Amino acid sequence: MSTDPTRVAVVGATGYAGAELVRLLADHPGARLAAVTSERDAGRPLGSVHPTLADTGLELESADVSSVAAKAEFAFVALPHGTSAPMVAGLLERGLKVVDVGADFRLRDRALYEAWYGEHTQPELLDEAVYGLTEYAREAVAAARLVANPGCYPTGALFALLPLGDRLRGPVVVDSKSGTSGAGRAAKTEQLFAEVTENVRPYGVARHRHQPEIEFHLQAVGAAAADVLFTPHLVPVARGLLSTCYVDVDPGVDVAGLVAERYRDEAFVTVCEDGRMPEPRNVRGTNRVEVAAVRHGDSGRWVVVSAIDNLGKGAAGQAVQNFNLMTGRPEDAGLRLRAALP
Amino acid sequence: MSTDPTRVAVVGATGYAGAELVRLLADHPGARLAAVTSERDAGRPLGSVHPTLADTGLELESADVSSVAAKAEFAFVALPHGTSAPMVAGLLERGLKVVDVGADFRLRDRALYEAWYGEHTQPELLDEAVYGLTEYAREAVAAARLVANPGCYPTGALFALLPLGDRLRGPVVVDSKSGTSGAGRAAKTEQLFAEVTENVRPYGVARHRHQPEIEFHLQAVGAAAADVLFTPHLVPVARGLLSTCYVDVDPGVDVAGLVAERYRDEAFVTVCEDGRMPEPRNVRGTNRVEVAAVRHGDSGRWVVVSAIDNLGKGAAGQAVQNFNLMTGRPEDAGLRLRAALP
Amino acid sequence: MSTDPTRVAVVGATGYAGAELVRLLADHPGARLAAVTSERDAGRPLGSVHPTLADTGLELESADVSSVAAKAEFAFVALPHGTSAPMVAGLLERGLKVVDVGADFRLRDRALYEAWYGEHTQPELLDEAVYGLTEYAREAVAAARLVANPGCYPTGALFALLPLGDRLRGPVVVDSKSGTSGAGRAAKTEQLFAEVTENVRPYGVARHRHQPEIEFHLQAVGAAAADVLFTPHLVPVARGLLSTCYVDVDPGVDVAGLVAERYRDEAFVTVCEDGRMPEPRNVRGTNRVEVAAVRHGDSGRWVVVSAIDNLGKGAAGQAVQNFNLMTGRPEDAGLRLRAALP
Amino acid sequence: MSTDPTRVAVVGATGYAGAELVRLLADHPGARLAAVTSERDAGRPLGSVHPTLADTGLELESADVSSVAAKAEFAFVALPHGTSAPMVAGLLERGLKVVDVGADFRLRDRALYEAWYGEHTQPELLDEAVYGLTEYAREAVAAARLVANPGCYPTGALFALLPLGDRLRGPVVVDSKSGTSGAGRAAKTEQLFAEVTENVRPYGVARHRHQPEIEFHLQAVGAAAADVLFTPHLVPVARGLLSTCYVDVDPGVDVAGLVAERYRDEAFVTVCEDGRMPEPRNVRGTNRVEVAAVRHGDSGRWVVVSAIDNLGKGAAGQAVQNFNLMTGRPEDAGLRLRAALP
Repeated sequence: MSTDPTRVAVVGATGYAGAELVRLLADHPGARLAAVTSERDAGRPLGSVHPTLADTGLELESADVSSVAAKAEFAFVALPHGTSAPMVAGLLERGLKVVDVGADFRLRDRALYEAWYGEHTQPELLDEAVYGLTEYAREAVAAARLVANPGCYPTGALFALLPLGDRLRGPVVVDSKSGTSGAGRAAKTEQLFAEVTENVRPYGVARHRHQPEIEFHLQAVGAAAADVLFTPHLVPVARGLLSTCYVDVDPGVDVAGLVAERYRDEAFVTVCEDGRMPEPRNVRGTNRVEVAAVRHGDSGRWVVVSAIDNLGKGAAGQAVQNFNLMTGRPEDAGLRLRAALP
Repeated sequence: MSTDPTRVAVVGATGYAGAELVRLLADHPGARLAAVTSERDAGRPLGSVHPTLADTGLELESADVSSVAAKAEFAFVALPHGTSAPMVAGLLERGLKVVDVGADFRLRDRALYEAWYGEHTQPELLDEAVYGLTEYAREAVAAARLVANPGCYPTGALFALLPLGDRLRGPVVVDSKSGTSGAGRAAKTEQLFAEVTENVRPYGVARHRHQPEIEFHLQAVGAAAADVLFTPHLVPVARGLLSTCYVDVDPGVDVAGLVAERYRDEAFVTVCEDGRMPEPRNVRGTNRVEVAAVRHGDSGRWVVVSAIDNLGKGAAGQAVQNFNLMTGRPEDAGLRLRAALP
Repeated sequence: MSTDPTRVAVVGATGYAGAELVRLLADHPGARLAAVTSERDAGRPLGSVHPTLADTGLELESADVSSVAAKAEFAFVALPHGTSAPMVAGLLERGLKVVDVGADFRLRDRALYEAWYGEHTQPELLDEAVYGLTEYAREAVAAARLVANPGCYPTGALFALLPLGDRLRGPVVVDSKSGTSGAGRAAKTEQLFAEVTENVRPYGVARHRHQPEIEFHLQAVGAAAADVLFTPHLVPVARGLLSTCYVDVDPGVDVAGLVAERYRDEAFVTVCEDGRMPEPRNVRGTNRVEVAAVRHGDSGRWVVVSAIDNLGKGAAGQAVQNFNLMTGRPEDAGLRLRAALP
Repeated sequence: MSTDPTRVAVVGATGYAGAELVRLLADHPGARLAAVTSERDAGRPLGSVHPTLADTGLELESADVSSVAAKAEFAFVALPHGTSAPMVAGLLERGLKVVDVGADFRLRDRALYEAWYGEHTQPELLDEAVYGLTEYAREAVAAARLVANPGCYPTGALFALLPLGDRLRGPVVVDSKSGTSGAGRAAKTEQLFAEVTENVRPYGVARHRHQPEIEFHLQAVGAAAADVLFTPHLVPVARGLLSTCYVDVDPGVDVAGLVAERYRDEAFVTVCEDGRMPEPRNVRGTNRVEVAAVRHGDSGRWVVVSAIDNLGKGAAGQAVQNFNLMTGRPEDAGLRLRAALP
């Protein structure tokens, strides 16, 4: 499967995550875009919605399982939760491999899912879905038919927290600052430029759906502390996600050392040195992660900070990274990107 | 009428211009807010939509002519064009004075209006409506029952151009850069923060409805050149409107002198000196205008620049200034505001 | 002293806090600006540096104790730490009352001050200085000759934390997001627009000078937990400061109730209701504070969030509020301001 | 020369144009970065100044002609005007080819140069230097030893105006809106985030140095009208440059057709269709240009708009495009970039 380009479909190609997938796949040496879908804009050229993608020559179509399956071997599904699951099930049934960029398969515990999202229409697939935090699930991803791409906030938080593993003690605070593209491209008054500029807006405090996702996957790797207090904030930034995590460990534990050790050989992760702190601008437009850990006195309290692009490692970038593994390609194919600063 | 506060209504109080009117009127010594309306949010406290206006204690109601007329002596109507005219007519009939912040009465030529906006339902009022560019129409405004509040772009352009009067030669270029609040508070994809940030967007090039408004009122004051080529641009700014106007005059004419002379005694207008240029930030949140004229060589070509707040002098501020004249109050009552920088 | 306007000086009038002081005092019914100083721009009109303050007609002068003392009865000192103390001492000696907007008198413990800032040149004044978090020190402020105006971060954090008093258990996390004006008006590469836009930057993690200030004043009011882990972040906002505080209390304690009770009668504090959260835009340009507390499960963990304008309640606004008390005026004189949105 | 990578130096590598050059060259298949210089940061790793370039492993050195010439075959010089010329002369003398990203060789008329910039230290090179507006000078660039890379404003303006050639009648207005990176990375108060956000700032009105550059190169191609009235504006954007040009032609001339015809086969130029207008975001981080022409009535007046990235086609991108021609490589080598939106 790794020699010829894989014929891929992006289901939900006009939202921000979908369009970023198209951007990455259009220039990916191992992928050929075979179908792009949009309910609202079906029948229009993709370039009329996103001019920078006009050279793909693609036309948007309605998301029909048969039609997509006829054209593609692999599908990225970027649909709202609830609508994603049946589409995914249909595509799997027709033999496609799927990365679901939405939330439907991220919580492998049906009861937990339904407590936060409502009824799940395809619970039989929950066990099979692999949670695609790539660096932490390479083998499973490579073998998977269905990968649940992590949410942007959980990606940011887990890259900061997972290196601590079972050294975590007591509850964890995750204070995140996200760009607005994380909220999607749908027209909403509270996302208008004039509402967002010159402001910082906390939302979903202590009740955001990404909190159980962070907790679930902390537990999955054996972290003793899976009591996460998570507060997302909207900042006047289009792309970018900074997660400031406050953790406790036993006094002697060297969190910075654990982080450095864990990511020593990871191509997409930079552990900041010499007091430099992660900044989202450094990873903008890429699949990269920046991480740093700072000790607070001698009490075993640390601040661990990570920066990602919510549309990159937090969505489309990681989805392509998972695609690479699922199709036997080099993990960084199509992802050797560098942020353009300023 | 000038001793007791005037009972005022704001029809369409949740849009940006409407909310700015409420902000100004809530602290106005000569006004008492008697009614605020919103079709979408009728029944809710105003403070639940705009928290900074919660202390007004006002509840939003549906815009009903009888109900508004029963409560108020004076109405500010901030509705979309077309819906404004019948409301205005009803309120006038019940004895209220009205400032229409919308477009329905700005073009006193019915054919011209209908060519740009579609059918006019109250053409009989066109003759009576006074175009409320206050500094240029004080007596008529003071005597008016109905004032058509100028559009934001025409206000910016006319403050730059009108001092030249009949010295204008040949066509005029007006290149304007506007904050996004000028497009209103309705949810639109192209106004999302992520679509506006880090961009400059020309729109309505050579076909924006404010072009005939600028031309019409240039002609009204006898400007020989009323051929205006107008290009609006959206910039990543919430409030603020800069108009860069390119004009020709006979070589000897001192445009800077004309501008300085015209505004010498105007409390709301600052003519910039010593090479300083107008900047929207200097007038943000106020009813002020900044203007400067720069000569280009000896050919009689000049650049005249103005800066206003599109919601201030470009909408609500000027509306309150007109209200002050229409109710016999000091022209700057409730408008002694200073921009907070940065 | 409260009938005639007080003759006031602003020492350091061209920085952001100084200019905001001038803005507030220029329109203050009980103050007359008698002197404004700037080392860099001495001899120039204030309006040539800050055009929106041109109508004050003031000329900048060098900060000379005798000259300032000859003109003013009251001084606001907005100088860098270290340079402030001798100026303050000189002005007090000549009989002026002083609000020091800088850091020199905020930590009444000399050793603590010197550990964070270096040598203190006027330690004899540390005991006398009143920490001017107005709502928590009214009587002392009213009687003071010297008020140390709190830092912007401590103001935001303390308004969130102090209502809990001795109910605080264990360490506290304060995660703050600040606008760039908090860093001052000096030219620095890392504060350039192109460096700040589309980014979130953590800095001074676990070693910012405002951490001991928060701890010191938490202890002062008897808070059992004065172990504060404080992380400031720079966000692409000119003005505004959001503080997200994570606290522990005994499970039964109703933090939201404590907050509501504490601020019930405070004119400048809004406790957000019905799930609304504080946002800096709502207090922009004002002396106001917004606060909200959200419970996280049943464990006694809470998120308490405050929003201020770092130049308003976080600097100049609170300084004027203290001035009002120190000169026997209504506490809100010159401070009845409302944010202009958007 | 086209098979092995060319050893290149970037002289002045820490400014915005220099760092963008390093970004493009680090991933360029035909270039090997051999030296990067910075006076201020000599001796430090490039990655300590620009973390996203850390993987280059380069160390900054002082700009010494001999040292640079010993390491590199080709140099990009990104220095302030005046300091650039002697460096360029030295490098040419030692056999290097040079693209000068600065202003020193853009005006081939010494008197004109000196009228705007002051004395020229290497006037003997003015005749040889090729003005590297690539699409208009391919053969000369390919044969050149020294290319003067056009300024960002002239690039934007000339791409809009040159297709009209000698059809231009009368004077031209160029109204440009630029991101702040065009002003460089030097610390200046007026470029602080808090000074730039929520504002639009006209500057250098009718006296900017790019005006003679536009005029000079309009004349060079035979445009009858080389009387340009140019107004630059600073907008709150890091990267991006929109130029709105107002031109006159004889009534029958189809400017849109001329533009479409001229750029039909240009890989880096998109002529917008169906009423879409150029937007800087579409070309961000790339070497692309967007252009559109809109007719204003029947009078022969047109608005021609172009969008570029001021650091891309307006500086580093075009410099690399010229490098490609000068070293016999495919013109788009290392430049197949796509904007990441939003």
